[in-house]
Amino acid sequence: MIHILSNTPSILNVFISEIRDAEIQKDRMRFRFNLERIGEVFAYEISRQMAYVEKEVATQLGFAMVPVLIENPVLAVILRAGLPFHQGFLNYFDRADNAFISAHRKTHKDGSFTINVEYSQVPDLNDKVLIICDAMLASGTSIVNTYRDLLLKGKPKHIHIVSVLASEEGIDYIKKHIPQQNLDIWLGVVDEELTAQSLIVPGLGDAGDLAFGKKDINT
Amino acid sequence: MIHILSNTPSILNVFISEIRDAEIQKDRMRFRFNLERIGEVFAYEISRQMAYVEKEVATQLGFAMVPVLIENPVLAVILRAGLPFHQGFLNYFDRADNAFISAHRKTHKDGSFTINVEYSQVPDLNDKVLIICDAMLASGTSIVNTYRDLLLKGKPKHIHIVSVLASEEGIDYIKKHIPQQNLDIWLGVVDEELTAQSLIVPGLGDAGDLAFGKKDINT
Amino acid sequence: MIHILSNTPSILNVFISEIRDAEIQKDRMRFRFNLERIGEVFAYEISRQMAYVEKEVATQLGFAMVPVLIENPVLAVILRAGLPFHQGFLNYFDRADNAFISAHRKTHKDGSFTINVEYSQVPDLNDKVLIICDAMLASGTSIVNTYRDLLLKGKPKHIHIVSVLASEEGIDYIKKHIPQQNLDIWLGVVDEELTAQSLIVPGLGDAGDLAFGKKDINT
Amino acid sequence: MIHILSNTPSILNVFISEIRDAEIQKDRMRFRFNLERIGEVFAYEISRQMAYVEKEVATQLGFAMVPVLIENPVLAVILRAGLPFHQGFLNYFDRADNAFISAHRKTHKDGSFTINVEYSQVPDLNDKVLIICDAMLASGTSIVNTYRDLLLKGKPKHIHIVSVLASEEGIDYIKKHIPQQNLDIWLGVVDEELTAQSLIVPGLGDAGDLAFGKKDINT
Repeated sequence: MIHILSNTPSILNVFISEIRDAEIQKDRMRFRFNLERIGEVFAYEISRQMAYVEKEVATQLGFAMVPVLIENPVLAVILRAGLPFHQGFLNYFDRADNAFISAHRKTHKDGSFTINVEYSQVPDLNDKVLIICDAMLASGTSIVNTYRDLLLKGKPKHIHIVSVLASEEGIDYIKKHIPQQNLDIWLGVVDEELTAQSLIVPGLGDAGDLAFGKKDINT
Repeated sequence: MIHILSNTPSILNVFISEIRDAEIQKDRMRFRFNLERIGEVFAYEISRQMAYVEKEVATQLGFAMVPVLIENPVLAVILRAGLPFHQGFLNYFDRADNAFISAHRKTHKDGSFTINVEYSQVPDLNDKVLIICDAMLASGTSIVNTYRDLLLKGKPKHIHIVSVLASEEGIDYIKKHIPQQNLDIWLGVVDEELTAQSLIVPGLGDAGDLAFGKKDINT
Repeated sequence: MIHILSNTPSILNVFISEIRDAEIQKDRMRFRFNLERIGEVFAYEISRQMAYVEKEVATQLGFAMVPVLIENPVLAVILRAGLPFHQGFLNYFDRADNAFISAHRKTHKDGSFTINVEYSQVPDLNDKVLIICDAMLASGTSIVNTYRDLLLKGKPKHIHIVSVLASEEGIDYIKKHIPQQNLDIWLGVVDEELTAQSLIVPGLGDAGDLAFGKKDINT
Repeated sequence: MIHILSNTPSILNVFISEIRDAEIQKDRMRFRFNLERIGEVFAYEISRQMAYVEKEVATQLGFAMVPVLIENPVLAVILRAGLPFHQGFLNYFDRADNAFISAHRKTHKDGSFTINVEYSQVPDLNDKVLIICDAMLASGTSIVNTYRDLLLKGKPKHIHIVSVLASEEGIDYIKKHIPQQNLDIWLGVVDEELTAQSLIVPGLGDAGDLAFGKKDINT
């Protein structure tokens, strides 16, 4: 199921507006903080679909029945743009296990590109609730490749794919390549256009560069 | 209208569980961080009732219509327990104006007490959306006294009263003394019992002491 | 002894530059964050004068002798401008007790003003290390009045007075009214001029308004 | 030059004590927060060696000459344990460019291991001040390999290597393989023993696992 959070008015839309705004983007700290706040809101929304169990805790004055998570999710982050976004999830699921994956876009001389998974540090995923965080869902290839790499480490019982900004083409690509069963897709906002260079328009630019600075073109 | 967020399962309940738990409370930093996270979730929920307007922003690649807040709310905090809770609101409404109020409980020799508003730094509230944050809603007198003090600074167009932990008696007291029009009450969780000393049971203890340490009994 | 941290080059000076800059000040979140970072740097510098004792801790692989604080300081904050500054201290002394004091400037019709301590929540201070945080040291009256109010709650063994921005006149006033024994004064930067309205020039403006928004003139 | 910060008493030692303590480590959030605070203290200490220039800024009330960084450093982080540590640096050098590198330890059947650099996103480093952050300096091979990989992207004018916990053997290894000119090594604390499995004793355990959870052994 696809959930597009910007369809409902909330402060989340303000955070998204700020990361799009070419002027406000110049403050990298605010850009990262916005991604972090957006991650927190997604974490909260996803947490509403999780399973809780009642537990008794001793307060200073008595006993209370309180709901606690049956299990913590595994938070998978796609480097590097996903890092501040992932931090937001980690702020709320502070006891979660984490997976780190790099999905590097290698641009070829003719302008085409491939996505290579180079770095992958992943816990056992069997029977886990897995949340895959990527800042942007452009062509969709990096999330699909990451998804495939992650599933080598086990079969999660439920997967949430989360992205701040998506293209319609990227959503279609995911739907085509990832089975819909036990899957939720959570998006901040969806833009119509995807350029031949896989840039979302009007989009926001390169989220990794905006958060952490440009990398060397020869990297 | 009264909104009790713990009626819906979410990670918010886990944060509330942690601040109740006498063992986990021993870590003051985590206690404050939980109040902060709870404040963020309330801020997000309240933001869904706010008014937004579409604005055009220039991205690096084009123009996008984005929703922005028509106006920022005024965040009023009741000292001192409310401070970490208020910080959560400030994390999300980072451009808001703020009001600081102290509502000090003065205990008399016979065990009874009165609430005095001593400190009050408040912006003009006329026609504003006002959010009053107090960590606990016990007897309700401190919020009602604060409310009255705040209204000396103008007539807000809408008021949200927010509290992490409330007693049923406190809710009744508010309903009796604050007009329900243009009012929303947002609560984390509601406990049944209120002792003669105005302690919520099972509650969590003294939120101010847990966040910042005991104060001198003669203060 | 007086320590002026800006006499040594460090990133602290950049934080101070940013809170002075009328353009950068417009971002309240960054203004508060700068005060918080400045508080952390002061906390670290002051911590170098504290007393530690060696304790054995069990690591996963053996035992290590580690230095721990003999006692946590008490952090006193002067409302409201001091709050983000105090947060920086609390980030580093996360197990400290805290005192909250309001020192309100009441301006009279003739332009003169008095400082009243209205709100005061203070732990037992006997034999404690006390750190008094105020964002600005202008005329010095608010810190001196706060100091006197605090000492009603006991006799600290050592007092640190900390301020981001001070006037020379304010320093003189403190020296005249507070005994120098067991006292350290920690300042970010010192400006020469203090106007008749007790504004530091070039200064930075009203730190409370910059952090939290203007308050009603009739407050 | 080698700087060992724990040689001077300060609150930094308390943060290091906490990340060593097998009991306190169980709170991952606190573990990450301690790494972050440690990163901030290192950032501040390193910033004292940086070059500043006086600039005039317009305050609300006049003009002030303030020192600003001549240039921001490049912050290189070794994944994944280095991430919370790097966050501390980023909190203080919030406008810095960043480099992300993975140095993965591949353990062989005979117990020996090699370090492979798999992921590398690095800006132009020519003539830059480069700060390389790794949580642990055990055998030293991961920092030396990272160093070599980084230098493919240019020749920095000064390099700072920073690590929270080091072994003497690791320090020797760095000294042998990295030219000492224009190099500073910043360490929190140094332990004597390094096991055949390259574990620092008494050390603290696996910083990556403690911050983010265990990864699958087959990863």
